[in-house]
Amino acid sequence: MTLLVAGWVAIDEIETPFAKISNSLGGSATCAALAGALFTGVRLLAAVGEDFPAAERRKLEGRRIDLAGLATIPGGVTSRWGGRYHFDMNTRDTLYTELGVNADWQPRLPKGWEDSGAAFLAAGDPLLQRTIMGSLAAPRVTMVDTIKFFIDSALDELRETMRQADFVSLNESEAREIARTPSIARAGRTLLDGGPRGVLIKLGEYGAAFISPHDYFVAPGYPLEEVVDPTGAGDAFAGGFLGYLDTVPEITPAQVRRAVIYGSTVASFQVEGYGPARLLTLTRDEVEARYLEFRALTHFEAGK
Amino acid sequence: MTLLVAGWVAIDEIETPFAKISNSLGGSATCAALAGALFTGVRLLAAVGEDFPAAERRKLEGRRIDLAGLATIPGGVTSRWGGRYHFDMNTRDTLYTELGVNADWQPRLPKGWEDSGAAFLAAGDPLLQRTIMGSLAAPRVTMVDTIKFFIDSALDELRETMRQADFVSLNESEAREIARTPSIARAGRTLLDGGPRGVLIKLGEYGAAFISPHDYFVAPGYPLEEVVDPTGAGDAFAGGFLGYLDTVPEITPAQVRRAVIYGSTVASFQVEGYGPARLLTLTRDEVEARYLEFRALTHFEAGK
Repeated sequence: MTLLVAGWVAIDEIETPFAKISNSLGGSATCAALAGALFTGVRLLAAVGEDFPAAERRKLEGRRIDLAGLATIPGGVTSRWGGRYHFDMNTRDTLYTELGVNADWQPRLPKGWEDSGAAFLAAGDPLLQRTIMGSLAAPRVTMVDTIKFFIDSALDELRETMRQADFVSLNESEAREIARTPSIARAGRTLLDGGPRGVLIKLGEYGAAFISPHDYFVAPGYPLEEVVDPTGAGDAFAGGFLGYLDTVPEITPAQVRRAVIYGSTVASFQVEGYGPARLLTLTRDEVEARYLEFRALTHFEAGK
Repeated sequence: MTLLVAGWVAIDEIETPFAKISNSLGGSATCAALAGALFTGVRLLAAVGEDFPAAERRKLEGRRIDLAGLATIPGGVTSRWGGRYHFDMNTRDTLYTELGVNADWQPRLPKGWEDSGAAFLAAGDPLLQRTIMGSLAAPRVTMVDTIKFFIDSALDELRETMRQADFVSLNESEAREIARTPSIARAGRTLLDGGPRGVLIKLGEYGAAFISPHDYFVAPGYPLEEVVDPTGAGDAFAGGFLGYLDTVPEITPAQVRRAVIYGSTVASFQVEGYGPARLLTLTRDEVEARYLEFRALTHFEAGK
C-alpha cells in the first residue's frame, strides 16, 4: 500500500505575532507526505532546485518517504513562500510567492509508481493534477486540493479535475467562493454536483466537515491552548486522511469518518510547531492517543 | 420545576442581505424564554413600555410562559434594537440601541418566584444580574450571559457576577476579549479561574464548546443550508441548555453534554426564521428528532 503525494516542496518564511522563522521546510506536498507517512508508505512527486538543502532532503528520508520522484531541476531554484499571520492566527497575508522550479514543472512518474493505491494532488495547476491522476493504473482513492489562485484563474479546468477525483478538499472560504453561497452545507452539496464522491471542507480551528451524497460528518478542532504556526495544517489533514484510508481493507462511510478524525488529529499536531517540525518527531502512538481524545471531546448520550 | 429568565424583551429591526424586517419581537430574554419553554415551565422577568403590543404578549402566553414578572412601565417605551447582517451572516453591525424602559429597570421578583430551580441572567447590567441571582432561595443551576458593552464598561462587576454563577455563556469574541488570548481553549480555562463551574463558548455556525475543570465538550453547528436570521441564536441556546438541565434529576457531566446538544438544537431552529418566529411553532418532537441528527453528525468508531 502506498500513497502518492504530488505538489510543492518549498522553503518558507513565516511571521506570527510571536516569532519570525526563515528558511523553513515547507510546501503543500511536504506536509501531506509527512502526515501520510505516519500511516502508510509515501511516494513524493515534486520538484526542487539545486539550492534545496541536503539536510531537508534527509529529514524526509528519515521519515521513510520515497524521494525517487523528487526531481532536482538543473539550474533551477526551489519555490519560496512568505506569509504573515494576524493576532487571531486564523487569517494571514501572503507576503510573496516565488514559483522557482514550479513555474514550469513537468512531473514524470518514476517507473513502478503507476501502481500507487492512493493519491493526493496538493494545490497546483488543475491540468497537471489531472495528468498525474490519469497516469495511475487503478488508484483506490484520489483527492484533489486547491487554492484561491486556481479558483480565480482556472475554474473550468479545476471543475473537470474535481469531477475525476474521488474526494475534494477545500478550505471554507474556497468552498464558499466556488459555490457562491455563505452556507457550508449548501457549498458541500453544490460541489458534489460536480462529480466527486465526497467533499472535505476544512474549517481551520473549528475542525472539518465531510459531505457525501449519503453522509454528513462534522469533526471538531482539537482544543489547543497554543497554536504556534497554522501553515500546512490543511495539507497535513489531507495526508492523514488519505494515509489512513490507504490502509483500510474497504473504504466505507465509517472508515471515511475515522479518516477525517485521523486527519484532524495530525493537523492538530502540525500547528504545534513551526513548519512541519512537529510531524518530524510525531509517532503513531501519539496519534492514536489524541484520536481517543477526539472521541471524548464529542461523545454524548441519547436524548430525553 | 421552573426556569427563571431575566433580561430584555424588545422590538427589533433586522436587515439581512435578503430581507428587512421591522417591528419583530426580540430581546435576549424573549428568545431564551421561548427556548426554555420547550423543556420546562418558564418565568419571564423583564420590562416593556406601554407601547408593547398585546399581540406579542399573547405569543408568549401561547407558549405557556408565566408573564407575572413582565412589568409594563407606565409612560415607558419598549427597548428597540436594529442590526444589519453581512453576506456571510456571521458578522453584523448594530445600527441602533434604544434603551427605553431598560435604561433604569429595577426588577422586582413576583411573590413565590424565589423558589425557581434554574435561572438564566441574559445580557444586562452585571450588578442587576447579581441582585436577581441573590434573590433566589436555592437555585439548582444559574447561568450568566453578557455582551461586549458590559465587558468594556463594567468588567470588575461582571467578573464578580460570573464568579457567583454556576455557568457562564459567552460568544467566542467576548471570551477572547475577556481572557486576552486568541485560543478558545485557553480563554475557557482563564474564565474558569474566576469561579464558575463551567463556561459555554458559543461559536456561531461552528457550534459551541463547553469547558469545566474536568470536562471539554465540543458540539458542532447543525449544517443548515439556509440561515434566515441569526439574531437570538445564543439566547435560544442558553434557554434550551438551562431548560433541559432544569428537568434532570441530577446535573452530571453527561447531562451537561446533553444540555449543550439541546441548546445547539434549539439554536439551529431559531435561525431558521426571522426573530423568534420558528420557536413559536416548534415542538418537542421536532427537537428530539434533530437531537438524534446531531448524534449522527458526530459519531465515529474507535481507531486503528
